[in-house]
Amino acid sequence: MLLRHPHVEIKALSGTERTKGRPYGQVYPQYAFESIISANGKQGPSPVRSLPPLCLTEEVDFSQVDTVFCCLPHATTQSIVTSILQSAVGRTPRVIDLSADFRLADVHTYAHWYGTPHRAPDLQAEAVYGLTEFARADIRSARLVANPGCYPTGAQLALVPLIRAQLIALDDVIIDAKSGVTGAGRSAKEANLFCEVTEGMHAYAVANHRHAPEIEQGLSRAAGLGNSGVVVNFTPHLVPMARGILETIYVRCQAGVTPGDLRACLEQAYGEEKFVHVLADPQQVPQTRYVRGSNHVVMNVFPDRLQGRAILVVAFDNIVKGASGQAVQNMNVMMGIPEHTALEQGPLFP
Amino acid sequence: MLLRHPHVEIKALSGTERTKGRPYGQVYPQYAFESIISANGKQGPSPVRSLPPLCLTEEVDFSQVDTVFCCLPHATTQSIVTSILQSAVGRTPRVIDLSADFRLADVHTYAHWYGTPHRAPDLQAEAVYGLTEFARADIRSARLVANPGCYPTGAQLALVPLIRAQLIALDDVIIDAKSGVTGAGRSAKEANLFCEVTEGMHAYAVANHRHAPEIEQGLSRAAGLGNSGVVVNFTPHLVPMARGILETIYVRCQAGVTPGDLRACLEQAYGEEKFVHVLADPQQVPQTRYVRGSNHVVMNVFPDRLQGRAILVVAFDNIVKGASGQAVQNMNVMMGIPEHTALEQGPLFP
Amino acid sequence: MLLRHPHVEIKALSGTERTKGRPYGQVYPQYAFESIISANGKQGPSPVRSLPPLCLTEEVDFSQVDTVFCCLPHATTQSIVTSILQSAVGRTPRVIDLSADFRLADVHTYAHWYGTPHRAPDLQAEAVYGLTEFARADIRSARLVANPGCYPTGAQLALVPLIRAQLIALDDVIIDAKSGVTGAGRSAKEANLFCEVTEGMHAYAVANHRHAPEIEQGLSRAAGLGNSGVVVNFTPHLVPMARGILETIYVRCQAGVTPGDLRACLEQAYGEEKFVHVLADPQQVPQTRYVRGSNHVVMNVFPDRLQGRAILVVAFDNIVKGASGQAVQNMNVMMGIPEHTALEQGPLFP
Amino acid sequence: MLLRHPHVEIKALSGTERTKGRPYGQVYPQYAFESIISANGKQGPSPVRSLPPLCLTEEVDFSQVDTVFCCLPHATTQSIVTSILQSAVGRTPRVIDLSADFRLADVHTYAHWYGTPHRAPDLQAEAVYGLTEFARADIRSARLVANPGCYPTGAQLALVPLIRAQLIALDDVIIDAKSGVTGAGRSAKEANLFCEVTEGMHAYAVANHRHAPEIEQGLSRAAGLGNSGVVVNFTPHLVPMARGILETIYVRCQAGVTPGDLRACLEQAYGEEKFVHVLADPQQVPQTRYVRGSNHVVMNVFPDRLQGRAILVVAFDNIVKGASGQAVQNMNVMMGIPEHTALEQGPLFP
Repeated sequence: MLLRHPHVEIKALSGTERTKGRPYGQVYPQYAFESIISANGKQGPSPVRSLPPLCLTEEVDFSQVDTVFCCLPHATTQSIVTSILQSAVGRTPRVIDLSADFRLADVHTYAHWYGTPHRAPDLQAEAVYGLTEFARADIRSARLVANPGCYPTGAQLALVPLIRAQLIALDDVIIDAKSGVTGAGRSAKEANLFCEVTEGMHAYAVANHRHAPEIEQGLSRAAGLGNSGVVVNFTPHLVPMARGILETIYVRCQAGVTPGDLRACLEQAYGEEKFVHVLADPQQVPQTRYVRGSNHVVMNVFPDRLQGRAILVVAFDNIVKGASGQAVQNMNVMMGIPEHTALEQGPLFP
Repeated sequence: MLLRHPHVEIKALSGTERTKGRPYGQVYPQYAFESIISANGKQGPSPVRSLPPLCLTEEVDFSQVDTVFCCLPHATTQSIVTSILQSAVGRTPRVIDLSADFRLADVHTYAHWYGTPHRAPDLQAEAVYGLTEFARADIRSARLVANPGCYPTGAQLALVPLIRAQLIALDDVIIDAKSGVTGAGRSAKEANLFCEVTEGMHAYAVANHRHAPEIEQGLSRAAGLGNSGVVVNFTPHLVPMARGILETIYVRCQAGVTPGDLRACLEQAYGEEKFVHVLADPQQVPQTRYVRGSNHVVMNVFPDRLQGRAILVVAFDNIVKGASGQAVQNMNVMMGIPEHTALEQGPLFP
Repeated sequence: MLLRHPHVEIKALSGTERTKGRPYGQVYPQYAFESIISANGKQGPSPVRSLPPLCLTEEVDFSQVDTVFCCLPHATTQSIVTSILQSAVGRTPRVIDLSADFRLADVHTYAHWYGTPHRAPDLQAEAVYGLTEFARADIRSARLVANPGCYPTGAQLALVPLIRAQLIALDDVIIDAKSGVTGAGRSAKEANLFCEVTEGMHAYAVANHRHAPEIEQGLSRAAGLGNSGVVVNFTPHLVPMARGILETIYVRCQAGVTPGDLRACLEQAYGEEKFVHVLADPQQVPQTRYVRGSNHVVMNVFPDRLQGRAILVVAFDNIVKGASGQAVQNMNVMMGIPEHTALEQGPLFP
Repeated sequence: MLLRHPHVEIKALSGTERTKGRPYGQVYPQYAFESIISANGKQGPSPVRSLPPLCLTEEVDFSQVDTVFCCLPHATTQSIVTSILQSAVGRTPRVIDLSADFRLADVHTYAHWYGTPHRAPDLQAEAVYGLTEFARADIRSARLVANPGCYPTGAQLALVPLIRAQLIALDDVIIDAKSGVTGAGRSAKEANLFCEVTEGMHAYAVANHRHAPEIEQGLSRAAGLGNSGVVVNFTPHLVPMARGILETIYVRCQAGVTPGDLRACLEQAYGEEKFVHVLADPQQVPQTRYVRGSNHVVMNVFPDRLQGRAILVVAFDNIVKGASGQAVQNMNVMMGIPEHTALEQGPLFP
């Protein structure tokens, strides 16, 4: 996305000890042939060819950088972001952090779920939770944006407007989430091997996934309760596909509220949004293939057979709107660039 | 399974206008080479080679047959089963019906969900619902066994013991079910094409799937309410794999009941069962790859983050225990053969 | 691609009896939510929303159209293209035909392979074979461009420069080709169902595939033999993936010619091409994931263990460069638009 | 397979430092629920439950063992097999080695391809190459059987009878092989992750795979040339599926020999074989789904468009006939047990 962003120049790309010094196209197969065509049509040199080789983080001259996308493991991230933002000399870049380190406002909650005390509580307090559609004003002026987790992005987009409007019960939210395998990252673990994953599925981290407190924080804020108070069921599953999240969310309506009211609320919330859509047909079920490869989110609301309950279904691409796409969207907001810039890519089907 | 069953001889195989007269191995690729080795080691002629060619149903001499496995579309089934069981002359075979036609005891419920009045209400009343583990005595003496649907098999195996023991609330059962594509059958529909299904997932028939009343009937009976009374949320999803069902079931425990109590109840219910298993480790999550290709069912119980609630997860192969395997299991019961005969096949992984 | 093409306005979209009158987004799931963001950032109305509904071909007013992309079954195509190009009144559009109908210059070869005499032999003679990289001048002035088949695109890109340079034997070319399932189209056939295709592979149309004469025509022309003379082995295989073709081509070098010579020839042929690339590392093997979703083609040359022979490997996306992407590329050439316009999309991985 | 083998008792299972002490079912998901039903129908204790926990190789008392299946990495294997077979005291077990260590009779060839000198040249000389169908007499009396590699099993089954009968040219054999990902083993490497492999394919080790010399050895012997002399093209590809190998083999017939002659030769060679089959219909193309999960091999012969050439296609399950199934088949031969014992499993489709 950044390669084709008209206002972005990539100054540094940091890797690991294993990848430092290597060209990007050697590590990421989609750039293997090193000759992508640039947005403006010139090829020589191609933007990929012109990319700097991978380096170590400590080799980057951050004084030459406006924005840092930080995609490091949790815990590691805190000290690096601290050092970037607190370097004494000259201007400092703004940071969009894709790790979990600055998502949870409460450092005790962080310590509980991540098993280690937070080492940058001041930055934690300052960080803006970057679910773009709900936080544009804060993102615009933020030094540090915590890019939301994949599952929490979809769950909050479906639930926050309903909770703000007091349409659903707070104590009866069940989120059954299904994700493609990219959600597990690219590290070489037996559990993510092709032959382990293909032709099978399973739940994991049942009632014990780190995205639960992140979702709960967002819903608690929507309910005006501060950073906590709402508790949800969140049960993720691994599905044999690379990309895509589908979340099926079971809610109880407040007395007198119908599933149609929930639908109307969401339609109003997202009527002007470029990336979030309530499907026009009330019977149409969101599918991950509607959005694969794009920054779009589709959702719909269905009446339950259980009286007074409703079913929300939301689909999106976990590594675009659920990760890098939303990060670019946030950068656009921070920089005052039109928000959809470099995010025009439509869904790829089949 | 029947080819290797020591007490079975296949007398007739009926197909369609398109397939009649063709050898079985031309229509089903796993028999393409027509030379499977028989269980007793003889090859010449192989059991597949000795199979009769596919014929039309009306060409079968049912007086020469002990058991009929009927795998026809719903509605069609009723008149054929009627004619088989009510032929005036000589002995009649017993029927195991894999369609939905005789699963719902209430003909009005049938008519509502299947859109057509039931044409064999007497047989409907007589049919035994063949979820083997719960109905052995009735199956043994039945003329007509209604083989359960795939989703209802898993849902009832997980829920019936808990409801019989009054451990969970009847009005708060949410069944989020995920199935491989074999669940959709083998007919040539655009929706089931490889390129439509691969790398994507979606819910379907939300709050409107015909397996809902079948599950509700089973749970109502377990609650002592007759054929109806319990209503559940049942939300099926299609997953890009061929075989396997995973059902994640959200329940509210009765006051004073813990998830551990649910687990103990299920362990006791299935302690002697050959095909249904509560995983020994309370933290281990059932996976469809644990049971692929076998007649086994694995389940486990987890505490929810929501107070007083629990999560059940059950996995099985939808076309074995969820269809043909359970049909053979029922035939074994009907015939007084050891129940696991021809069902010894262990899971195939990878 | 056309939606985001800055010089294209879509005037009509024709469908079938089944789809006529329906919005595009109802038939193609990637447009299900009907709110793609346009290339210039305006959303209201989105380009998809502004698309005309599907109509029947006979309802299109071709006098209002500059270019027709014709994607009809073979045989059908001939009469429709004839009627479009020979309409008496006013200007006629130019046609890019994605069927096989105008690819084979020799109408007897066409009749032999397609089982029906050609009904538009004059147009056949006029049609330009649109493998862009080899035919720009002719495409520029063509009324009718026959867009190449998927397999022939890759095979000719790898072989034509080598044959022109007389580096390989003409009587010993073996093309072992592997394709994703999109190559079979979207029609509902049992053979293309998910459960038939997943977790398996096979050859098909062995020594009998219609792309063989198309490849042979291209190679014969490259050898200066006219439309025929070269005969090749062409063996296609179906692979359980949606997109992508990999062709592994076994050739015998002319006396004194080394695999390195072949490689140098191809590097020179494509040094200036935006979409065709010889991998920079002689040991790097082309993979379909290098190019998925893009119009790019990657290839490489390897020495064989058999003396005097070489192995060519070429990978591309069968439905972009192998079909619609090349069609847009041809339209750009025909219209004098920069050739890569609307084809900037890089590979999508994972 | 061994669990259900009526003449086998599993005395020891060795694992790694990581897995030692753990029950088998914790490491291999198909035994996760530890309650497989035994072949004789008894469940308590199940055969899996009665399995010994994984141990280290050095903890095994080999004097209590009749047969060892050795599945260790190459090089490591040599010293362990040496110590097993040359232990001074008491009887020694017979060894079926599934590594590559004893497949190549020429230790120099071994050293060249595996990069390390052979440490057990005497055993190398003694080892019997265990392609069962071609070596029963030797296998019967062998102390050490080298179980063939997966690709070489199919290639030799297709080619050896033709070479013995002098029907094809020895200098023009091209083997284009495609394998599922299980061929790469279960080690955690980035290249085998689900998201790297799914929806893509590629060649690998082009003209440089270690199975080439193994195939060449087998063909050279068939030609009466000793262990070398024949050189082949062997080009393997990775396909996004778990199981299955398809090999498409291009050969040149000797003068006057037709593809039909090749077919007749193979039909005669395998007419009595339980596991190797020439498809009855000369036009039917072998597919991996015909044999998935079974020990069967299917093949067929097709005329090429190139004069005087033919195409062989062979399909089998790489981890059954291509590995463990053939190992059990060899054990049966060694022990004088009917050869198909415990290999009755038919293909699993879908």
